[in-house]
Amino acid sequence: MNATQKDQIVAADFVLTMDAANRVIPDGAVLVRDGRIAAVGKSNTLCAAEPAAEVTYLRDCLMMPGLVNCHMHSGFLRGTAEHLPVWDWLRLHINPMHRTLRPHEAEAASFLCYAESVLSGTTTTVDMWRFMDGSARAASAIGNRLVAVPYVGEHPDYNYFDTLDDNELLIETWHGKGDGRISVWVGLEHLFYSDEAAQRRVVEMAKRHRTGFHTHCSEAAIEVAEFEKRYGKRPMFVLDDLGLFETPRAMIAHAVWLDDSEIALLARRGVSVAHNPVSNMKLASGIAPVEAMLQAGLAVGLGTDGEKENNNLDMFEEMKAASLLGKLKSLNAAALNSWTALRMGTIMGARAIGLDHEIGSLEIGKKADLIAVRTDTPRMTPLFGEGPYFNLQHNLVHAVRGGDVALTMVDGRIVVEDGQLKTADLRALIDHVHEVAPGLFARRAAWLAEHVHGSVQWTGAV
Amino acid sequence: MNATQKDQIVAADFVLTMDAANRVIPDGAVLVRDGRIAAVGKSNTLCAAEPAAEVTYLRDCLMMPGLVNCHMHSGFLRGTAEHLPVWDWLRLHINPMHRTLRPHEAEAASFLCYAESVLSGTTTTVDMWRFMDGSARAASAIGNRLVAVPYVGEHPDYNYFDTLDDNELLIETWHGKGDGRISVWVGLEHLFYSDEAAQRRVVEMAKRHRTGFHTHCSEAAIEVAEFEKRYGKRPMFVLDDLGLFETPRAMIAHAVWLDDSEIALLARRGVSVAHNPVSNMKLASGIAPVEAMLQAGLAVGLGTDGEKENNNLDMFEEMKAASLLGKLKSLNAAALNSWTALRMGTIMGARAIGLDHEIGSLEIGKKADLIAVRTDTPRMTPLFGEGPYFNLQHNLVHAVRGGDVALTMVDGRIVVEDGQLKTADLRALIDHVHEVAPGLFARRAAWLAEHVHGSVQWTGAV
Repeated sequence: MNATQKDQIVAADFVLTMDAANRVIPDGAVLVRDGRIAAVGKSNTLCAAEPAAEVTYLRDCLMMPGLVNCHMHSGFLRGTAEHLPVWDWLRLHINPMHRTLRPHEAEAASFLCYAESVLSGTTTTVDMWRFMDGSARAASAIGNRLVAVPYVGEHPDYNYFDTLDDNELLIETWHGKGDGRISVWVGLEHLFYSDEAAQRRVVEMAKRHRTGFHTHCSEAAIEVAEFEKRYGKRPMFVLDDLGLFETPRAMIAHAVWLDDSEIALLARRGVSVAHNPVSNMKLASGIAPVEAMLQAGLAVGLGTDGEKENNNLDMFEEMKAASLLGKLKSLNAAALNSWTALRMGTIMGARAIGLDHEIGSLEIGKKADLIAVRTDTPRMTPLFGEGPYFNLQHNLVHAVRGGDVALTMVDGRIVVEDGQLKTADLRALIDHVHEVAPGLFARRAAWLAEHVHGSVQWTGAV
Repeated sequence: MNATQKDQIVAADFVLTMDAANRVIPDGAVLVRDGRIAAVGKSNTLCAAEPAAEVTYLRDCLMMPGLVNCHMHSGFLRGTAEHLPVWDWLRLHINPMHRTLRPHEAEAASFLCYAESVLSGTTTTVDMWRFMDGSARAASAIGNRLVAVPYVGEHPDYNYFDTLDDNELLIETWHGKGDGRISVWVGLEHLFYSDEAAQRRVVEMAKRHRTGFHTHCSEAAIEVAEFEKRYGKRPMFVLDDLGLFETPRAMIAHAVWLDDSEIALLARRGVSVAHNPVSNMKLASGIAPVEAMLQAGLAVGLGTDGEKENNNLDMFEEMKAASLLGKLKSLNAAALNSWTALRMGTIMGARAIGLDHEIGSLEIGKKADLIAVRTDTPRMTPLFGEGPYFNLQHNLVHAVRGGDVALTMVDGRIVVEDGQLKTADLRALIDHVHEVAPGLFARRAAWLAEHVHGSVQWTGAV
């Protein structure tokens, strides 16, 4: 946001507002003033009312709110950690990476992942990652909106993650910074990665800083059995007993193996869910009961998960996968329709992270976080934005890919234009990852050679 | 193919041959002579051996065989026929379209669909469509390889499709034409769309012309019950009894609801399958038993299905969906790995349509059907084409999208370069579809208003 910036009118062939009525405005525009949306309407009306504004007409494009990625991990293990179920994969690839990761590598990963995100139309990312000073610097530079959630492990067996001290320092340093684009939540890799003192401190810290709490839970079926064994209860009831749902905004990643009583509990507690359909297929976790969650009134956002679980960060693909998986789960082609998928990717995702008063739709007073999607492609043909064959929402969910994004604006600032990153040298970011990656792989390989034996143990220190 | 063309060396950072060993050649190249591959190897070796050849170096690209789409329908109903199970969807959208479709509309659809295909890296398409003279003209112009399979219905209740007479005339006119790029098979929409005389003629005609046979079967669970009711047998045994598997090359689209005895039967008869994972999710059909088919030795290719069932024609997305769905079906993250998905999208797809001696891999003597995929993207970073972290196959299947295709060559002719269609004016093709679509929609609406009443009937005439 820049208070001295001139008023801007951004116009497009269609404006998809994602307001409560899913209103679509042909030949629409938004007026951007000081980084916020000051008006939404027909392009000619806005231009007549604001003759002093600078007008950008995005031809052959539709405009919509920027996408909200509710669960992502920065990283650069893409394609190097494949074909293992979740817990083996953690033991052999991911946790050894965490043991050996260094801050400059973590920062390089965030730079590239945020670049990939804005290039494919994501304006807000919930990133659970490490050494997140570097991530905050990356978001400052790239220009995306960031909810930084450190990967915290505070347990003798998981003493190689970020700590709650690190998390608190990050809150004090970065929460509300970057012109308000950066917020910091309290994170926990998984409940099993914490001891009781840490669990109490998570609740206390989130309350005191009035911020959110995010963790992975009920991703694989095996977790439910382990919770039953350790606590005699299903996972969501355990988290509730521990006070974790009393935090100002709790969001659970995955939530694949929830029963109806757990869904009802989340609804009562106002807990939201980050659904990761591609990751849940790729790691063979299962299909989350998303329709039941939506019927219970939960805010269910979408997440790509990390580059190693997906293997891209394309939220258009995630919306499609959510719709497809919803239909498959119920063998009902009408399930999880395109408007629902679009709402999950935008305004419901914003609600899931408690930012729906600021982002997620193109409405007066909200931040100017918006994207333009090319319509002059075979994928978007035919396109009907009015009339009985209206298909704009279906094309967006089922045909478009992130590469069709022409423009990305966050907080009124253009970060992608003509499909090109404007805020950093993309090639330099790619090259930098190639420079630093071999060091991390080598240290991890050395650690693995020395330490990994035996089978997966839930409570084992790996 | 142009016999007077100069020899060409096409080089790239990596050449993915998709030969029997899945060999990848860093700094690799192919020598293209008269539309065929005359050599494959290291770039510098080929350049030294063939100093007279014209060299094209595709920087920041990998080269691989063009993708083979084993099941597609041209069309332009994209996004206008949503949220219905297969048979309602046929009744309310698709079959009324067939009743009212006219040849110039069918041709416009093929032009756009083939353009979309080559732009996203598909060099060969099996298209089941109507009035396919127009499709053959489209393939001649766009430059793709085409297996044309008319949508035939020969049954009093389905007398508004192409006929076997049309099919035979198409074979006589176009089979082997377009420098050999066009072949014509015998098609049948579904066994239920034919009477007994038609079934006998299908077998006779395919044998006499030594060509393939393609039909939809066992897409929805309800079909199996209907076959049991009509014939007292499961679908594949019925098709076998009718002699349809004695055709020189039979390929079944979908094959979602096959039991083990049917898979074994297809293996014995050398029948191949076109698997359509996205369509099978979108129409809520179910998950095909692909791993069991592969274990039985079936050639399983991939298909996007049509623009109305997917809603794009991106075979990269289809390879990813196949891998994800394979993992989900067995809840095994090691299932249907990336190499398998790539083989299904290339050489196994070629085998499924009986063209593996000509296309599907980059090997000496084969047609020069190849594509280049950009590697200078965040989606492809990091990229390891050698060494212990080799991830090229995983990036291709799980991160890349069709929009990353930089170059497409068919028969030695470049049809897409720098991501742009070279053989036709893409914008004109898009505009033309927008011009003709309203007429079809209007005629269909008029027909529906007059005729559609009551519930879905298997044997009803709609």
